[in-house]
Amino acid sequence: MVRLQPPGYERFVQADSLEFTFGGAEANVAVSLANYGVDAAFVTKLPAHAIGQAAINSLRRYGVDVSLIVRGGERVGIYYNEKGASQRGSVCIYDRAGSAIAKAVPSDFDWDKIFKGADWFHFTGITPALSQGAADACLEAIKIANEMGVKVSCDLNYRKKLWKYGKSASEVMPELVAGCDLILGNEEDAEKEFGIKPEGFDAEKTGGEIDQTAFVSVCRQLMAKFPRCKKVAITLRGSINANHNTWGGVLYDGKTLWQSRRYDITHIVDRVGGGDSFMGGLLYGLLAYPTDQEAIEFAAAASALKHTILGDYNRVSVAEVEGLMKGGGSGRVSR
Amino acid sequence: MVRLQPPGYERFVQADSLEFTFGGAEANVAVSLANYGVDAAFVTKLPAHAIGQAAINSLRRYGVDVSLIVRGGERVGIYYNEKGASQRGSVCIYDRAGSAIAKAVPSDFDWDKIFKGADWFHFTGITPALSQGAADACLEAIKIANEMGVKVSCDLNYRKKLWKYGKSASEVMPELVAGCDLILGNEEDAEKEFGIKPEGFDAEKTGGEIDQTAFVSVCRQLMAKFPRCKKVAITLRGSINANHNTWGGVLYDGKTLWQSRRYDITHIVDRVGGGDSFMGGLLYGLLAYPTDQEAIEFAAAASALKHTILGDYNRVSVAEVEGLMKGGGSGRVSR
Amino acid sequence: MVRLQPPGYERFVQADSLEFTFGGAEANVAVSLANYGVDAAFVTKLPAHAIGQAAINSLRRYGVDVSLIVRGGERVGIYYNEKGASQRGSVCIYDRAGSAIAKAVPSDFDWDKIFKGADWFHFTGITPALSQGAADACLEAIKIANEMGVKVSCDLNYRKKLWKYGKSASEVMPELVAGCDLILGNEEDAEKEFGIKPEGFDAEKTGGEIDQTAFVSVCRQLMAKFPRCKKVAITLRGSINANHNTWGGVLYDGKTLWQSRRYDITHIVDRVGGGDSFMGGLLYGLLAYPTDQEAIEFAAAASALKHTILGDYNRVSVAEVEGLMKGGGSGRVSR
Amino acid sequence: MVRLQPPGYERFVQADSLEFTFGGAEANVAVSLANYGVDAAFVTKLPAHAIGQAAINSLRRYGVDVSLIVRGGERVGIYYNEKGASQRGSVCIYDRAGSAIAKAVPSDFDWDKIFKGADWFHFTGITPALSQGAADACLEAIKIANEMGVKVSCDLNYRKKLWKYGKSASEVMPELVAGCDLILGNEEDAEKEFGIKPEGFDAEKTGGEIDQTAFVSVCRQLMAKFPRCKKVAITLRGSINANHNTWGGVLYDGKTLWQSRRYDITHIVDRVGGGDSFMGGLLYGLLAYPTDQEAIEFAAAASALKHTILGDYNRVSVAEVEGLMKGGGSGRVSR
Amino acid sequence: MVRLQPPGYERFVQADSLEFTFGGAEANVAVSLANYGVDAAFVTKLPAHAIGQAAINSLRRYGVDVSLIVRGGERVGIYYNEKGASQRGSVCIYDRAGSAIAKAVPSDFDWDKIFKGADWFHFTGITPALSQGAADACLEAIKIANEMGVKVSCDLNYRKKLWKYGKSASEVMPELVAGCDLILGNEEDAEKEFGIKPEGFDAEKTGGEIDQTAFVSVCRQLMAKFPRCKKVAITLRGSINANHNTWGGVLYDGKTLWQSRRYDITHIVDRVGGGDSFMGGLLYGLLAYPTDQEAIEFAAAASALKHTILGDYNRVSVAEVEGLMKGGGSGRVSR
Amino acid sequence: MVRLQPPGYERFVQADSLEFTFGGAEANVAVSLANYGVDAAFVTKLPAHAIGQAAINSLRRYGVDVSLIVRGGERVGIYYNEKGASQRGSVCIYDRAGSAIAKAVPSDFDWDKIFKGADWFHFTGITPALSQGAADACLEAIKIANEMGVKVSCDLNYRKKLWKYGKSASEVMPELVAGCDLILGNEEDAEKEFGIKPEGFDAEKTGGEIDQTAFVSVCRQLMAKFPRCKKVAITLRGSINANHNTWGGVLYDGKTLWQSRRYDITHIVDRVGGGDSFMGGLLYGLLAYPTDQEAIEFAAAASALKHTILGDYNRVSVAEVEGLMKGGGSGRVSR
Repeated sequence: MVRLQPPGYERFVQADSLEFTFGGAEANVAVSLANYGVDAAFVTKLPAHAIGQAAINSLRRYGVDVSLIVRGGERVGIYYNEKGASQRGSVCIYDRAGSAIAKAVPSDFDWDKIFKGADWFHFTGITPALSQGAADACLEAIKIANEMGVKVSCDLNYRKKLWKYGKSASEVMPELVAGCDLILGNEEDAEKEFGIKPEGFDAEKTGGEIDQTAFVSVCRQLMAKFPRCKKVAITLRGSINANHNTWGGVLYDGKTLWQSRRYDITHIVDRVGGGDSFMGGLLYGLLAYPTDQEAIEFAAAASALKHTILGDYNRVSVAEVEGLMKGGGSGRVSR
Repeated sequence: MVRLQPPGYERFVQADSLEFTFGGAEANVAVSLANYGVDAAFVTKLPAHAIGQAAINSLRRYGVDVSLIVRGGERVGIYYNEKGASQRGSVCIYDRAGSAIAKAVPSDFDWDKIFKGADWFHFTGITPALSQGAADACLEAIKIANEMGVKVSCDLNYRKKLWKYGKSASEVMPELVAGCDLILGNEEDAEKEFGIKPEGFDAEKTGGEIDQTAFVSVCRQLMAKFPRCKKVAITLRGSINANHNTWGGVLYDGKTLWQSRRYDITHIVDRVGGGDSFMGGLLYGLLAYPTDQEAIEFAAAASALKHTILGDYNRVSVAEVEGLMKGGGSGRVSR
Repeated sequence: MVRLQPPGYERFVQADSLEFTFGGAEANVAVSLANYGVDAAFVTKLPAHAIGQAAINSLRRYGVDVSLIVRGGERVGIYYNEKGASQRGSVCIYDRAGSAIAKAVPSDFDWDKIFKGADWFHFTGITPALSQGAADACLEAIKIANEMGVKVSCDLNYRKKLWKYGKSASEVMPELVAGCDLILGNEEDAEKEFGIKPEGFDAEKTGGEIDQTAFVSVCRQLMAKFPRCKKVAITLRGSINANHNTWGGVLYDGKTLWQSRRYDITHIVDRVGGGDSFMGGLLYGLLAYPTDQEAIEFAAAASALKHTILGDYNRVSVAEVEGLMKGGGSGRVSR
Repeated sequence: MVRLQPPGYERFVQADSLEFTFGGAEANVAVSLANYGVDAAFVTKLPAHAIGQAAINSLRRYGVDVSLIVRGGERVGIYYNEKGASQRGSVCIYDRAGSAIAKAVPSDFDWDKIFKGADWFHFTGITPALSQGAADACLEAIKIANEMGVKVSCDLNYRKKLWKYGKSASEVMPELVAGCDLILGNEEDAEKEFGIKPEGFDAEKTGGEIDQTAFVSVCRQLMAKFPRCKKVAITLRGSINANHNTWGGVLYDGKTLWQSRRYDITHIVDRVGGGDSFMGGLLYGLLAYPTDQEAIEFAAAASALKHTILGDYNRVSVAEVEGLMKGGGSGRVSR
Repeated sequence: MVRLQPPGYERFVQADSLEFTFGGAEANVAVSLANYGVDAAFVTKLPAHAIGQAAINSLRRYGVDVSLIVRGGERVGIYYNEKGASQRGSVCIYDRAGSAIAKAVPSDFDWDKIFKGADWFHFTGITPALSQGAADACLEAIKIANEMGVKVSCDLNYRKKLWKYGKSASEVMPELVAGCDLILGNEEDAEKEFGIKPEGFDAEKTGGEIDQTAFVSVCRQLMAKFPRCKKVAITLRGSINANHNTWGGVLYDGKTLWQSRRYDITHIVDRVGGGDSFMGGLLYGLLAYPTDQEAIEFAAAASALKHTILGDYNRVSVAEVEGLMKGGGSGRVSR
Repeated sequence: MVRLQPPGYERFVQADSLEFTFGGAEANVAVSLANYGVDAAFVTKLPAHAIGQAAINSLRRYGVDVSLIVRGGERVGIYYNEKGASQRGSVCIYDRAGSAIAKAVPSDFDWDKIFKGADWFHFTGITPALSQGAADACLEAIKIANEMGVKVSCDLNYRKKLWKYGKSASEVMPELVAGCDLILGNEEDAEKEFGIKPEGFDAEKTGGEIDQTAFVSVCRQLMAKFPRCKKVAITLRGSINANHNTWGGVLYDGKTLWQSRRYDITHIVDRVGGGDSFMGGLLYGLLAYPTDQEAIEFAAAASALKHTILGDYNRVSVAEVEGLMKGGGSGRVSR
């Protein structure tokens, strides 16, 4: 998806140029994994023209395998993003209707071939929000992955502005999430997609402080509803203002709630893709470390760093993430 | 319409930012007229969000009356434009499907109110190419203009890539052009929209050299087919390469073919909107000068200058155009 | 007025380009009002050349009526602005001597015609600081406004560096302010222009904390001195450093001191025009809301947002200001 | 003097930033000489504020001695320059009234001290055009230079837009030029300042072709009128369009007219300062080479190169100029 | 290799930023082939730090296989490039001493593994110019390629400034070129590396006009000296000035000299990598077309287009090159 | 030394351009002193090519005497700097091997001539880290300075990544520092270069809080080890994160530890050169003020301001530093 953003803190009505980058929830996870040295392929549909090619080149640049991308359709989806500051929140205008992926249908993808040799399939709640065709393709992928023994994860990612083709998230998502081994979400996603309410938590009121009981309650409800799911992760954002957030996450394994360190990010550079970088970090963490505590710390540190990096993609190395996990985050220079 | 263009001569696949400007055939004519001090309003439909507002602000900046623009719809149409150089031609990728104007219907516009106090209505072959609704709205406008005594002009502007809703230009355009008092086109437009062939002219072969007999032939055929039409103008572009064109035009009044000076534009800055600037200049020229010769000279000089100006809009004054009409175009500095 | 500013945090001595925008106290108020959907015209004098035209286009872009602007004179006034950071304050270098407006005389403006159909006239203490002619034109405008029943407001805006034509602010301002229905100022303005001292308040010492008694004292003195005045507003800036300010305001109606919420602006993007955005917000607030409390809250929220926007003009909508008035200012993204 | 120019080919009315550089006829000559390794000091008056300091730093950067510059006054003069293309000429808007140098008076400069150890004093027709004070200071400098045996040169540089203080160039210049040992000008300068007409030459008609007889005629008239003058140089610009000029010069020693090679500059980058770079090259050429032919070739080659360099200053080395003098100017890369 | 270039036509001494791209003769050929859909891997040695990674990402972006690149060493070689205009030639400053590839030794590369499954190995005269180690590695690669039946090609690419480690090109190159099946060069390369002089040709004198006899003479001498070589190609550049070149090439198969169309490139955007794009086009042409005439036409058209593209890499598709081969190069827009 | 840095917060792997500035520990001190009006010359060796010239011009721009710089060698050393944000620290990649100064030898510099008329010689621990030759030249300079009565100061500046030529800092530095009259360092420098440990201080643990006893201990050990030294200064940086540091310093005269105000720098613009600006401020402070307390306050205020300025050089005036020393640092605008 094309991301068009005015430079710095300019508003759309005053901008004369837009930063032209690419992103999207699943693509961002793929880039994270590729950065950590994990083989990662991105599957989508993109037009054969130069804008589609530019999207592909952007992924290739960061080491993602693009050989499974189907070429076709008319347009690349766009989101216009205007960066906020202090009391002014960011503005996001989606322009994704009619994109190649929104018009894709299940027959565009040969999942048996795509999953050959794969270990893991990740999708998010954004793709099924685009169109019936995209939701159908997603469902087919999950079913085939389940059959082939490919693990499945989902970032619930509820986006109110996107669900426009006549079905609601709560109608579509349950069947998809039923095939998942790992779920990532936040309190709003769980409520909007499944009606699961985190008891005793209100981000606005508490400033994002963690109430452990409430999180365990949400995780248990999700695991009860989706028995295939073995682990649930939740991200915790405290919005002080548009430049200053706190950030962390928890991972629940059915018994224990593992909590990450809580980062105080006082000078956010770009918070778009924060959740995706958390997901990418969590997948790597679960793969690379023996304990869930380390996995959730890697996820949180990776996405704390993402908040300091321009663009959707989290361009950090394992060494950099581990540096933050182990160090103090005091931003000292190495020289 | 949003125009997204890489800076300088960058290709889409290497660009990290895009120039974010606005344009479109009819909008460009409106800006030209406003620059010349003529009251000009632009009528279209634009979304209520910030990208729609930015389009409106862009027109306001150059003095166009935007009070008649209808707000609504989801997206602003886009064209991606990549500037060519020497042997490499420009690349234009349209992304206009589903735009507010493409989804507009006749009932969106109250033409009786819009035309109150108006003298002239101008449209181009691009609008009816977008959708049945846009073509219908256009036809209704022409009919009401004809009834109310508002003069009508059309720039034929054939765009092969746009006609996608199931009808061809040759099916739709004749009924629209039948209501016109003035037609602007080039040899390709006349052939593609009405099957009228300029005898003895081939832009590739002759390098754009003028064969007077051929032009008179085309003009006569157009005026025979559309008897309401009193004058026909044709633009003449000789493409030496992407940076170097020759440019001029002719105006036929049913008897005489008035030819403009021929400009040798050796260092083109931006040729997009060249035809629109010709149209804007012609409308002003016919209004402001007593002779057709002066009118076509103003049109040609205005659009020669347009080739030196970034963006769709022709930001030149009457004094500057007249300076070129009368002077040698030697680019001397006044100080 | 042209505003020339190095990009980002560059100093003048290292800059190779300057941002080229336009602003000025009264123009900024006009843009604010136009953004809120109020008809607003800006009256000034600008040269007929391209720099003057660029100033006009800048105002048109944001919907301000420019048809009353007189064209003439030699130059557009300039202020060079260098943005500070942390302990380094901004630097402002005025280069306004000899500008078209500084050389304007009362006969340049036909106030009877200008005020036809107008409800409100706003000026600031900056215009009479420029020259005797500008002060005279201002005084004539106020008198005619008073006669025609057009309400008058003034932002006291004391600028020490500008008063250079032989008269001091304390000599000139009282006669002008005597014709005002609404006064906006801060503690320094009142002292420098009228010798009115806010008792018990010192911005440096208290860090900008509000001492209600002191403000009531200043407001009462102003209203006693200028009996036509029905309301006085005061802005409250607490400067923690160049990036971090607190901001709010009070409105006194002769009886009650209405206080706005106090905003903690931790990442200022551009504080120039902060007071003007407050004035624009206050005028809209008084017009649109039934209570003074809402009016002062709108003013404060509007200008808190201004601190996050590049350039003099406050490019925010009523919906955005109300969003902040009602919400928490936590900068969350809507998507 | 500050030079403010939109990037690339942007017009003032569309620009959002301006290139911020420095220049001016005499300063440009000083930079040329410093680049060639000649000790060169620039004498002027500049305000004590940061814009004045930036002007000084700009000269220091290229090795000019700035220790003789007087600090004072309010503003640095400005010229806005908009670069033309093809048929569109450049636009120059002067904003120099009230600058520190325009308000300077003879007593600001201690010429006896300034000229201590100096060999040469150069001024141009632009300085005396600014104000009576500047003209007076200039005249005093020339007289003292004459007395002290410091050679004097003048570039006639007639600028119609500048002479505004009540005297014309033809009233002021003769007394100044009478003290000169070397004069540089073009056919227009000689006519406007002294009524001397080059017989048989018309830049518009002939496309800038050289008519040797006409030049000799102008040179002889100048030397007859100003007997102190030993050599006269004339620059020859042929304007094909704003991007494409021909360029060369002649030097007359009272007997022989030495002609330089004629350069065909097909892709001009920046022609501002072309004449100044010629003057700088000529002064160096007369100093460094035994023959007038070499001197005029160096001047022409230096200023041909200037046309390819952004900004007023000619940033080229002796080796580069000599490379062009001796080579073919085919733009081959050395690697 | 890092390429650092001032924006536009700025000189090094005035630039405040540099374009940061990557290139190099062999890398450029690899990108060309990848663009045409041919599997291409680039083999080199790059440091493990972020600058080395950026070089790798740059190649990945355009589809080159980077999995064979060895990581190690301290620095990435740099070339500073300053773009010329009209009479001012480009300036190239190499800063490659001590780069990872210059310090590489044969044991860094396992050629047996690298060439597994490969059809073709291409190198240029630049690599053996860097150091004894690089020359040794190159020689080993050629020998193993010869043994394994992998075809070998060489672009002679003589760079006087690079040969600094104690051996001359004429000492080193013959042994390397002896293993080549295809040679690309120009008249200067052949003379400097092997003492072979093209009779009757002088680029300066003839303005780059082709003397067929001379070329056949050079090709024959090369093939006589290096009997393994089956085909020789020569590029022909005519330098009119830094912006305007003519360009074409010839291919000799031992019997016939196939000549390409000659392109008149009037507005060069970037000529660096012109020869490499010719090589890339030639390799593709020989692979994809049945005749040598088509192969040389593809090579010439591809590299004519390269001159219009910023950066070392030729970012064009087969369709675009064929469009130019078949069309007129008039730069018309497709829309 | 060339400093190459991505714009804003971009990472190397995503940047397409780099800021191209110059800096280096000793050069930065020279610029500081020149800004304060002190005659300062910079002595180094730089190549004769354009990159070397650009380095020289950069120093000249800020008033540093460059006449003693030796021209020669192949390359200018480079450091790539990537700016961190919040939890992400800056990344510094040195590319200085083989630079002209690293390859310099004592005979390149004629210290007797260089020190003629000089009062003070300053060097840092970075120069002797580059190579044996640089260390030798440094030692010779110190010895001759000592002989000629020129005072010597050293900023210990330990850089682990630079010491690569076979000797360690602890082997080389003692002999050099033995010739110093004034030493500046921090706790890490003293430990790494001389094994002197500050008792009871740990920057990470205490968040940079000052333990007075520990500092006195370090200073005393240094003065005991290097008896020539009369004063020792220590900078104190508290790293909260990459954007937010606290900063101050102490000066010990053998008896008293003078402490500066502690600055809370919440929005760092550029911390590179912070220590050098402290040194420059300290040298000026010791020269200009009667008390050590004022000297250390000037140093601290000067370098607090440096943190708000882009680039290595501290572009502030004495008036600005004194403004901060005396004022509150609240960043108020003067207008």
